[in-house]
Parts: sequence; C-alpha cells; structure tokens
Amino acid sequence: MPQHFIAAHQCATLDRRIDIPDGMAKTAGKVYLVGAGPGAIDLLTVRAHRLLSQAQVLVHDALVDEALLALVPATCEIQAVGKRGGQASWAQADIDRLLVKLCQQGQQVVRLKSGDPFIFGRTTAEIQALKAAGCDFEVVPGLSSATVAPLLTGIPLTDPVLSSQFTVLTGHDLEQQNWEALAKLSVLVILMGARNLGEICDRLIRYDKRPETPVAIIRWASQPQQQVWEGTLLNIMQQTKGQKLSPCIVVIGEVVGLRPYLQP
Amino acid sequence: MPQHFIAAHQCATLDRRIDIPDGMAKTAGKVYLVGAGPGAIDLLTVRAHRLLSQAQVLVHDALVDEALLALVPATCEIQAVGKRGGQASWAQADIDRLLVKLCQQGQQVVRLKSGDPFIFGRTTAEIQALKAAGCDFEVVPGLSSATVAPLLTGIPLTDPVLSSQFTVLTGHDLEQQNWEALAKLSVLVILMGARNLGEICDRLIRYDKRPETPVAIIRWASQPQQQVWEGTLLNIMQQTKGQKLSPCIVVIGEVVGLRPYLQP
Repeated sequence: MPQHFIAAHQCATLDRRIDIPDGMAKTAGKVYLVGAGPGAIDLLTVRAHRLLSQAQVLVHDALVDEALLALVPATCEIQAVGKRGGQASWAQADIDRLLVKLCQQGQQVVRLKSGDPFIFGRTTAEIQALKAAGCDFEVVPGLSSATVAPLLTGIPLTDPVLSSQFTVLTGHDLEQQNWEALAKLSVLVILMGARNLGEICDRLIRYDKRPETPVAIIRWASQPQQQVWEGTLLNIMQQTKGQKLSPCIVVIGEVVGLRPYLQP
Repeated sequence: MPQHFIAAHQCATLDRRIDIPDGMAKTAGKVYLVGAGPGAIDLLTVRAHRLLSQAQVLVHDALVDEALLALVPATCEIQAVGKRGGQASWAQADIDRLLVKLCQQGQQVVRLKSGDPFIFGRTTAEIQALKAAGCDFEVVPGLSSATVAPLLTGIPLTDPVLSSQFTVLTGHDLEQQNWEALAKLSVLVILMGARNLGEICDRLIRYDKRPETPVAIIRWASQPQQQVWEGTLLNIMQQTKGQKLSPCIVVIGEVVGLRPYLQP
C-alpha cells in the first residue's frame, strides 16, 4: 500500500463540467475510495483520517457526517454528490466521470463513502471508470454500520453458544433474498430494512423462525442521536409503530438477548 | 462514549498473581476492550490508536501485530495472554480475573484483540467478569479481517448483480453450521477455515452449489507477507496442495470473479 501522499498546498477551482479532454496525459493524481465508517471521527481508520487531512478534493455522499468534512484542509474543494436538503443526487455515471477528470488534473481526491466501500457502496462502477481511464486509485476500508451498530449497543454478532455465523443483507428488495435459507441462520443484520420490516418478520416466521426471536433496531449508530428499539419478530412492528426508523440497522437473532449482560 | 483518558505517567509493576482482595474499593480504573483490526497500524481506528498511545497496561492476544505493541508509552506494562513461541496460552478465567484486578488497581487497561471484539472475539466472558466486579469498561470496534481481507484483494462482498448478502462464519466446527442453507447464499466468508477447507467445499457441492463457484484464500491480510490463492470449489484443494494457509480468510462466491476488474 503506497504510504506517500502529496501535501495539499493549493486547490485549483473545480471546473464543474465533467467532459474529459481527449489525450490528456496521465499525471500524479490519485483517487482514494475511502470508507467513512458509521460517522464518528473516532471510528475512522488512522489512514482515512490522514487522507482526509491532506485531501485536495473531497467528493462525498449524503450520509457522510458533517464533522468528517471539517477534517479536510481549508483549501480543499468539497463536492457533495448525494441527495441532501431536497437537491437531486448525481447520476452514477456523472460521479464516475468527475473522479476520472479530477484524477487526470493531478488532484489528490478523497471519495468518501459512509460505512465500508465494498459493502453496499456502489464502488465497483467508480473503480471500473478509473481503471478504464488509467487512473491511480486505492480502496481504504471503513467500519460498516452492520458490525458497529450491534457492538455499540451490546449485541455480539457471534457467541460460543448462540451464534457461529452472521449474515449481512439488504432489506431493500425482498425478492433478491432466499428467506427460507435465511430463516435457518442464527443472526441476520439487515441494512435498508426499515420500510420492509413487517414483511421481513412475516416471511421469517412463515419459514419457521421462532416468532419470539429477539429483534433490535439501531438508528444513527455511533451518533449522539443514536436510538435503539427492542422486540421480537412478532411484536417489533407494534413496538415501533409511528416511529421514524431510517437510517437503521436491524439485528435478528438470539444474541440480541445478551444485551443486558454486555452493556456497561 | 466517554472521551477522557487519564494520561499514563507511571506504570506500577504488575503483580502477576491474580487473586483479588475482598472489599477493594472501586477506583477510576477502566478496561478498554479494543479491536486491533487486521494488523496494519493504518487500519486501527483513531480511537484505538489514541487509547494505545495512552495505555498504562496492555493485555493482548497472540495474533496482534508487534507494530501495534510499539504504540504504547515506554512506561506501559505489556502482558501477552495468547499462545506465542511455544508458551501455553492463558485460561480464559485467568484473563478475566487479570482484567478485573488491573481495573480495581485503578489502571487504564487496553485489552487488545485482533479484528473486532464482537466477531469471534471471546469478549463476552471478559465483559461479564468486569460487570460482575463493578468495573468500568468500553468496547471499541475494529475492522474484521472478514471484511478487510476481501477488500484489500479486490473482492466486493456485495454487488448489484452478484450478491445482495454475505455470511461470515467459522469453519472450525462444521457441525455447528447448516450447510444446506449456506449453499443457497451468494457469498460466504469463512474464518478459521483452512483445516476443514476440503470438507467445506465437498459439503457445498453436495448441497448443489455450482462446483465452478470461485474461491479465494487470503492469508495475512494487510500485512507485508499477504498471500492470495484462487480456484473453485472443485479445484482449490489441488491449487493449494502443500501450502500453509493459516491464518486465512476463505471467500466463496461469484464476486471473487470480479477481482481482475477491481484491483489497481
């Protein structure tokens, strides 16, 4: 892993047009596709922290916390490409081309994504665009909320007795998943599961998962406004009726019952 | 999350006997159960790095990298409790009692575990001992090799087309797992899977997983000596014949085939 990073001294004004001049020579630009973790600065990696503090351009998603944006140098150009405050989000192809263009301009670019870039991070398209253009890049892992949210609320994902495996899945499109197989596993960690929560619980019960299986919902993990709800497959919808749950992590499994024994 | 941490100034000589005097008053000691990540200092969290640099006592496992041990103050007492260089490892109950004793002595203790404390980390016993003794503690997440090893070798755990879920499991005891269910999932990440690799591949094929399903083995992820092998369920045993694979992460799924497109 290359350790060097050219110090930011002056950041050229970013040309928002994203057409790339043909035949532009490859420069010393580089794009760092960086996992921001769940939001707290303390939970960045040392490497992500250093890269942010030296970035010439920062390109970030909507879910990335404001506090992280404050880590970049005063001269750094900041470009939000996610949905925020009613603005439309960028098309993926436009983000891809922006990263290529900045790299070809010789910039040290941090592309910051919430959580981990390789867990539901849409990073593949960006890497393929960078590779196709001959741009230098590096992927820097981050803590996924899938593992941090349970930990911060006292729920171990594995346990010598209760769980020898855990599965991380998206609850966004239920037809993508094999619920019969999932119902046989000990721990499910569901991202983007708030909207379909009732149907998820129904399907698991239909495939013979114990209706009393504990469920925890963790919203804004690691942030000051963190919230936790607990229930079972049978009653979690009732327990959270009328509450805004998103963005949240849903944990389903007997390990949720260990919470009282593991929280400080 | 408490942000303060008493600066280490002098570290009392550690009494190796682990009996705890009855009725000892609770002091300002605290035990931090910290995930060390995969080994590289760069991949520690900012919080883990800060806690190590201020530790009065460091209690660590065998798999924790030497470079991390160098981060503690010169005055810090370092206690290895894992198997190393032929020495016997500590019994879990003795580790539990050591942590309680150090905390009751008023020490700021970092209990460093490789990876993440809540993913196959044997952390539950230590927390329960600390709680039972009224000791202050905090669990600090770390990057698990289960997610970092695939990322560093260009394997995304999720993909819009190939994978909407991944499962992390131990390959240590095959009878703990439901292989029929696991065979129906898109990505398996197996820790401690080297010894049983042949049998794991056989079982997945027996439950109708495609024999040509790609397999990657990543040894010493993030370390200079990192090694990667690739094959399929059918031929990975032949591909790695005579090689020492442990400690490694095994990734099974079509996403392994994306490697050539995602590596720098």
